[in-house]
Amino acid sequence: MEALAGIEAFCSDVIEPFARNAAADRLPVSRKLAKAWGDLGMLGLQTPRELGGLGASYFAKISMVHALARRSFATAFSLNNMQSLVYIIATRAADEVREQHLSRLLQGDAIASVGITEPNGGSDLANMRTNATKVSGGWVVFGEKAWITNATICDLMLVSAQTATGTRGIGRFIVDMSSPGVERLPAHPMAVGHPAGLGGARFDRVFVPDSYLVDAPGEAFRLGMSAINGARTHVAAMCVATLQQSLATAVRYCVGREAFGKSLLNHQGLKWDLADVANRLEAANLLTYRAAERIADGCDATLAAAHAKKFAAESALFGVERCMQAMGACAVLESTSLVRHLGDLKLAGYADGTTEMQNERIGAFLIEHYAD
Amino acid sequence: MEALAGIEAFCSDVIEPFARNAAADRLPVSRKLAKAWGDLGMLGLQTPRELGGLGASYFAKISMVHALARRSFATAFSLNNMQSLVYIIATRAADEVREQHLSRLLQGDAIASVGITEPNGGSDLANMRTNATKVSGGWVVFGEKAWITNATICDLMLVSAQTATGTRGIGRFIVDMSSPGVERLPAHPMAVGHPAGLGGARFDRVFVPDSYLVDAPGEAFRLGMSAINGARTHVAAMCVATLQQSLATAVRYCVGREAFGKSLLNHQGLKWDLADVANRLEAANLLTYRAAERIADGCDATLAAAHAKKFAAESALFGVERCMQAMGACAVLESTSLVRHLGDLKLAGYADGTTEMQNERIGAFLIEHYAD
Amino acid sequence: MEALAGIEAFCSDVIEPFARNAAADRLPVSRKLAKAWGDLGMLGLQTPRELGGLGASYFAKISMVHALARRSFATAFSLNNMQSLVYIIATRAADEVREQHLSRLLQGDAIASVGITEPNGGSDLANMRTNATKVSGGWVVFGEKAWITNATICDLMLVSAQTATGTRGIGRFIVDMSSPGVERLPAHPMAVGHPAGLGGARFDRVFVPDSYLVDAPGEAFRLGMSAINGARTHVAAMCVATLQQSLATAVRYCVGREAFGKSLLNHQGLKWDLADVANRLEAANLLTYRAAERIADGCDATLAAAHAKKFAAESALFGVERCMQAMGACAVLESTSLVRHLGDLKLAGYADGTTEMQNERIGAFLIEHYAD
Amino acid sequence: MEALAGIEAFCSDVIEPFARNAAADRLPVSRKLAKAWGDLGMLGLQTPRELGGLGASYFAKISMVHALARRSFATAFSLNNMQSLVYIIATRAADEVREQHLSRLLQGDAIASVGITEPNGGSDLANMRTNATKVSGGWVVFGEKAWITNATICDLMLVSAQTATGTRGIGRFIVDMSSPGVERLPAHPMAVGHPAGLGGARFDRVFVPDSYLVDAPGEAFRLGMSAINGARTHVAAMCVATLQQSLATAVRYCVGREAFGKSLLNHQGLKWDLADVANRLEAANLLTYRAAERIADGCDATLAAAHAKKFAAESALFGVERCMQAMGACAVLESTSLVRHLGDLKLAGYADGTTEMQNERIGAFLIEHYAD
Repeated sequence: MEALAGIEAFCSDVIEPFARNAAADRLPVSRKLAKAWGDLGMLGLQTPRELGGLGASYFAKISMVHALARRSFATAFSLNNMQSLVYIIATRAADEVREQHLSRLLQGDAIASVGITEPNGGSDLANMRTNATKVSGGWVVFGEKAWITNATICDLMLVSAQTATGTRGIGRFIVDMSSPGVERLPAHPMAVGHPAGLGGARFDRVFVPDSYLVDAPGEAFRLGMSAINGARTHVAAMCVATLQQSLATAVRYCVGREAFGKSLLNHQGLKWDLADVANRLEAANLLTYRAAERIADGCDATLAAAHAKKFAAESALFGVERCMQAMGACAVLESTSLVRHLGDLKLAGYADGTTEMQNERIGAFLIEHYAD
Repeated sequence: MEALAGIEAFCSDVIEPFARNAAADRLPVSRKLAKAWGDLGMLGLQTPRELGGLGASYFAKISMVHALARRSFATAFSLNNMQSLVYIIATRAADEVREQHLSRLLQGDAIASVGITEPNGGSDLANMRTNATKVSGGWVVFGEKAWITNATICDLMLVSAQTATGTRGIGRFIVDMSSPGVERLPAHPMAVGHPAGLGGARFDRVFVPDSYLVDAPGEAFRLGMSAINGARTHVAAMCVATLQQSLATAVRYCVGREAFGKSLLNHQGLKWDLADVANRLEAANLLTYRAAERIADGCDATLAAAHAKKFAAESALFGVERCMQAMGACAVLESTSLVRHLGDLKLAGYADGTTEMQNERIGAFLIEHYAD
Repeated sequence: MEALAGIEAFCSDVIEPFARNAAADRLPVSRKLAKAWGDLGMLGLQTPRELGGLGASYFAKISMVHALARRSFATAFSLNNMQSLVYIIATRAADEVREQHLSRLLQGDAIASVGITEPNGGSDLANMRTNATKVSGGWVVFGEKAWITNATICDLMLVSAQTATGTRGIGRFIVDMSSPGVERLPAHPMAVGHPAGLGGARFDRVFVPDSYLVDAPGEAFRLGMSAINGARTHVAAMCVATLQQSLATAVRYCVGREAFGKSLLNHQGLKWDLADVANRLEAANLLTYRAAERIADGCDATLAAAHAKKFAAESALFGVERCMQAMGACAVLESTSLVRHLGDLKLAGYADGTTEMQNERIGAFLIEHYAD
Repeated sequence: MEALAGIEAFCSDVIEPFARNAAADRLPVSRKLAKAWGDLGMLGLQTPRELGGLGASYFAKISMVHALARRSFATAFSLNNMQSLVYIIATRAADEVREQHLSRLLQGDAIASVGITEPNGGSDLANMRTNATKVSGGWVVFGEKAWITNATICDLMLVSAQTATGTRGIGRFIVDMSSPGVERLPAHPMAVGHPAGLGGARFDRVFVPDSYLVDAPGEAFRLGMSAINGARTHVAAMCVATLQQSLATAVRYCVGREAFGKSLLNHQGLKWDLADVANRLEAANLLTYRAAERIADGCDATLAAAHAKKFAAESALFGVERCMQAMGACAVLESTSLVRHLGDLKLAGYADGTTEMQNERIGAFLIEHYAD
């Protein structure tokens, strides 16, 4: 409870001003911010207690992202990405790797990222070109990654690479970004979402010791597929939080202004418009929690996560725009953050599987289960 | 379990063909159908077991309406209305009234309806003109009701009437439709929803014995307000069922037809369109069950019911239309029932509080709770 | 001018009541109605003056359909279909055919229809199965047609049939429906649009004299393609008319009712909702007239017609539903005709090329012209 | 023709890079850019030839804004605002004022803006607080203006001020921004639309000579009302141009990328999505040109301009978002400009009368003309 109050205070006192500046100055999440977040224990949110984390459940994580994403969708994206990697390394890496890196990762002194996507390749795992060749004592990784969250500041990257053909040939390796042959690429010149620190890296025959293979071929694809539902539901939860904050901003503004002797929100027009937004927000929230419950309960959440992410991403964009229209021109002042939220939320339509991919998933379910 | 199978069979073997004919021939639910439904025990669904009913919970009712409303939104509306009245009479009427009517109502040999709305008056309780004057041994009711479900065939009507000014002056009386002074009006000439049997009645100084006052002034308004959330959530549940059936119809059709060598649903266009429908259906279902849970748990469900009804009513119309478009011209054949569903579903936007009233409710909540 | 007043009077005095009954009793346009329309000269609207028609331009036709489609989309569809066939026979049939049929067609004593679509075949001309084999003095036609407007009452049908493989092998023949081997099929059991008289016919080795080949192979496909833009634009014009009438109905109703001491339309909520409808109506009207102008001017109207039909069909459904919601439950009374309009307008999404086909057309244009 | 080619080249070589930097660095249109635009003669676009301008019609202006707004909605907004003021001063100011300022304004050596809106006052002319008091030889202006385009760099401002109560008491004065008592306020801290240079100024008893009263009380309000339709239609035209450019960007991108062996746009999903965008774009364009024609012809364009602005502003936001979704994550790279366009286009929903004001206008028309 006290911890939660601390997080809430940190989000409003530190994250909020950081996010405003980050949008203005196009900055990724800083090492300093990551460290401060680590000081709160948040980088170990899901890491088991016996390994130095807080041991929170997936469900708790979904609830807690609210405080963050109300202030900044893109910062929430970055910080959660960091802690997900801490969890993977804590629970799946070899002892040697953990000993060397875990405490620094938990404290935010080192940052890990996850490298799946490739330039021009989308997230189509079947077309992955980065490859890893077995050599004595390790592997040699060759390829290029793009659109990687926190790529611009990470110390380690969990790189997916083909060890043999087919998705079952994919393995995942922790690459130390200071290794010979690693070339960190400049940040993608984004117009939104700067805190996410999206960028890429080239791996020109980078040697990776055997113990740095975290997910063996055969395992990596299965683990990735299983993690994607959690990631999608998490994006949905962030959309809900950012939309809720935008709605609160619009309601406060409209209640405080008058036209024809009544508050703007006591006229039907804007009241009904914002009721539409609130209605979608409620639905998005329920879809998100349903998916989160399934994940927390160990049920298959593929369909539930697809529904949650599609609906939340579409509703958040719709809703923030409606909130902006209700507020009039003041909505585009930087102080309201709504333009920033609108831009960041567009990322939700692409991240962890585009809305079109969710359509394909839902459509496949209809064909399988509705067409008897 | 067996009971459920029986209900499912009855719905598909009896309700479905009835509803098709009812649409063609503009017929209300028949006494014969009501009796057959009563024979299944369904008119006593919520009536306590000790009074001859099944004693089902509100939550169970919401789950069970699915079988009915998949076949006919308007028939579900009619039959549920009947059983709601049975419940009220069973649990709130005087012993004398129960003794005389309850077993016949449970068996479907008599039918009761609820009369609140008035011509031109909408559902604005503050403008109710029907009044009841105290006389020796009873009350004299004077006024007119309109848009009353099952009005065309009911034997009893639970009539709301003003005994004094203000909503706290409203009482509810069971009026025997065969009493002197009762004039049953012709069915409203509806273009949709004929099974609901919407119509009206005039009460020209109709005497009602004291024992037929079911909800005393002061009580009636409070009970009505509390019942409205259940009614709205029930409408939402019916919308979900009718939409789900329509989506299943469209998926089956599209899977069974080919274009360019693939099933229609293996092309992106219609697959994505129906994914949109499925997405809203899921959200509507969760909003409905959330409201139903709150009602079943005795929590305030005003806001939850408003969200569920608004979203479900709007999504059902949107969705059925999209299903029809996906099917091509075959969708407008009577055999698909989709035109009938589309027409009946329009009623959902008006019944038990229009969508605009839900907007007002949601808007009021925003002003109260978001504008701190 | 006087003629126009006569048409307007006929539409309101004769067509309107006919259409109400037709919806209730599931009737196609009657021979009597066709004759009365012919008496006004309207079956010869586009037929040249020297052949007994009015010689009106395509543009005039688009303007005049307004009076009809305001009352009944489906009746307008039927009557315009009849007059289109009169025009084809007047201008393209052999003298012998004209002499025998033209004056009766102009007067509505005989009715001609156009048979392209086949059961299960959609409008895919490349899959046409009806065929015509050359024999001495004529052709023998074999096949089946479905979804044919006025099929239930026509005397002649302009039947498309394959004389050789490929779309260039298609010819169009006038088949006398009383010929040996013609089996008229029952009307499709439609839930909407009854005046259109949709049905089918089987042709079991029907002999057709040489002179009844109206459009020779090679010509037929080209002429059909060129006519389709006119047909699509005409459907768009009907959508606009039916929507405009619905909007007028809703505005009148809402202006005439009060809530909280003001007309319903003096509150922002419904006023803004109906402003949305009016906005789309204006846009649909301009798209329709732009396409009509291109057709009248002899320019290629393929893209313009696709835009007009897609937008008008989608907007009309959207708009009529919004009008119904604004009116409250009174909207579903038969007296308002809005349920009938809503049902008929669904046909616009299928007729003369589905909305999906317009999407393909517009998409093809984007690929060709936007992707330089 | 040559002139047009020059403008097109200038827009792509100068405006485009300027707008990218302006978004990044939050810069208003520079004096240097204004001067270069003046060198092309464009600041005198509508100014009569005999006064040194190009004498172009309103219709020509609407056509020509396309080249500008394809590159930058906000820059087009700023530059057109400048030239409108040149036109007003050229045609309505006293000889003395013209002699002193016109040639510098035409060349872009001086910049004029128009000051109507006030802080917190929206555009409600009835609540204007800035006032002007007659004194010997001139007027003394007192008040504050906000949300003024080009406020941050203008040399002259056409200030609306109350000389007596009521809208008929409003006069318009040219205020030299270097006069004693003028305090230019900092630019509004906008998150979008920086080229528009929105800001404000305080006028603390600023003396304005008699000859600088351009629109006398009684005239000013009428002239302002008449100009507003031109301004709204101009905003609509800019929306169309910015959307068209965004659509072209998306089509080019999608045609150039493949999935499953075909271009992205040869799959139905994105093709149909972009067909929706193209459909609205066509409709917006026709509404805009209809309004422009009415203005050019001297007809009342109040309703036509309301329809055009509402539809174009809503469709442009809808469309740019759809284009971004079709392109995937690449859409949020700065190089595509789509995030910038999306942000700038939000201004269209507020500028020269919000969408809500257009709803009120259209609604008033419905009440007047549809409710007979």
